[in-house]
Amino acid sequence: MADLSTLCEKLDYRFNDESLLIEALSHRSNGAVNYERLEYLGDSFLNFTIATEVFHHKPKDDEGALSRLRASLVRESTLAEIARELKLGDYLMMGAGELRSGGFKRDSILSDVVESIIGAVFLDAGYEEARKLVVRLYAQRVVELPPAAELKDPKTRLQEWLQAQSLDRPEYAVIEATGKSHDMRFTVVCTLVSLKMSVQSTDTSRRKAEQGAASLMLEKIRRKEAQANQQ
Amino acid sequence: MADLSTLCEKLDYRFNDESLLIEALSHRSNGAVNYERLEYLGDSFLNFTIATEVFHHKPKDDEGALSRLRASLVRESTLAEIARELKLGDYLMMGAGELRSGGFKRDSILSDVVESIIGAVFLDAGYEEARKLVVRLYAQRVVELPPAAELKDPKTRLQEWLQAQSLDRPEYAVIEATGKSHDMRFTVVCTLVSLKMSVQSTDTSRRKAEQGAASLMLEKIRRKEAQANQQ
Repeated sequence: MADLSTLCEKLDYRFNDESLLIEALSHRSNGAVNYERLEYLGDSFLNFTIATEVFHHKPKDDEGALSRLRASLVRESTLAEIARELKLGDYLMMGAGELRSGGFKRDSILSDVVESIIGAVFLDAGYEEARKLVVRLYAQRVVELPPAAELKDPKTRLQEWLQAQSLDRPEYAVIEATGKSHDMRFTVVCTLVSLKMSVQSTDTSRRKAEQGAASLMLEKIRRKEAQANQQ
Repeated sequence: MADLSTLCEKLDYRFNDESLLIEALSHRSNGAVNYERLEYLGDSFLNFTIATEVFHHKPKDDEGALSRLRASLVRESTLAEIARELKLGDYLMMGAGELRSGGFKRDSILSDVVESIIGAVFLDAGYEEARKLVVRLYAQRVVELPPAAELKDPKTRLQEWLQAQSLDRPEYAVIEATGKSHDMRFTVVCTLVSLKMSVQSTDTSRRKAEQGAASLMLEKIRRKEAQANQQ
């Protein structure tokens, strides 16, 4: 494993209790003391801190736009990018099997470790130091947030992806609507006939259920593509 | 609307900027300035604060148990319970249509307002005051957390509910498994033959996807029951 002091320099943070950093870097394949509890803590701290940053940077956006912006910042791929900038893979402690299978390069693990380190700093020094760390890690990413409107909604993104592939439009159908007027639930199925794929989503309005279904469909397509690329 | 100073007494918090409290109590049916941005902020603050409380109260539980405990504390029904203890319905500002349809009694709105008030206190006075408010609002609920094992997992709860209704066991079937060994996704369908209901869920393991499907099924049953009770 690489020298921890180099990592501390990159984080611009020195631990009072270095065992917290070691715990944050220990994958569960390395033993019973591992990063999972710290990741749980760091995940919720990160979500909250980014929520606050987005809230202050976007004083006029509604909560839907704020949620989309936050989601774009805390998603696995963004966290894995940050992990790679910190070269976290070099410091990860994991069992031989995980090492051999390249666990130290996997987005899911790298993103977990960014969160566990944030959780470790929160425990080590409290709210303000951990908040500063998050702001440092995100640096320009928060300052350069795109206008929320540019973060296209899932239906638009699905539509654009299908057009780029010269595929038919998706079909949306409400298959269930329950509840009284002020407390209704809509279940929408989204189908891509040409790809023989369908997903469903339930929400408090037809519009939300359609967006939810489009989002699930995009996720399904992404997984299929990732799988195809691996083979 | 009831006197705000009575509410502040119940919260044991006095606002520096009372307009934040008014915003936190304003439903979107009341106008453009409403609680939605504050709710977004309060929701993530609450999640994080409860995550921290649970983390410290349960030093030996793994992250799965911690997540279940947190979920039990921040779910809509718990928040609505807290809202009713504070009589928040008496202070809500909403349009005539929402008032007539009983919006001030609805769990979904009451729980939103608990979050928006937490967000308002965070903006008004910062992390430490908002944290203390959450701890006051939850009081015994956090101290008296059940052992995580008592929070039954969704499959067990579904099974027990079905038994109590003398209905058949649920059927679980994996309908899709994609990805390579270390990055697989499983889609499981859960079917209740006797009720002609089915839901599906996708996750990184068969076990998790089954639990996810059971959880969706419980949610679906709960909605159907709520609907039946309204009629």
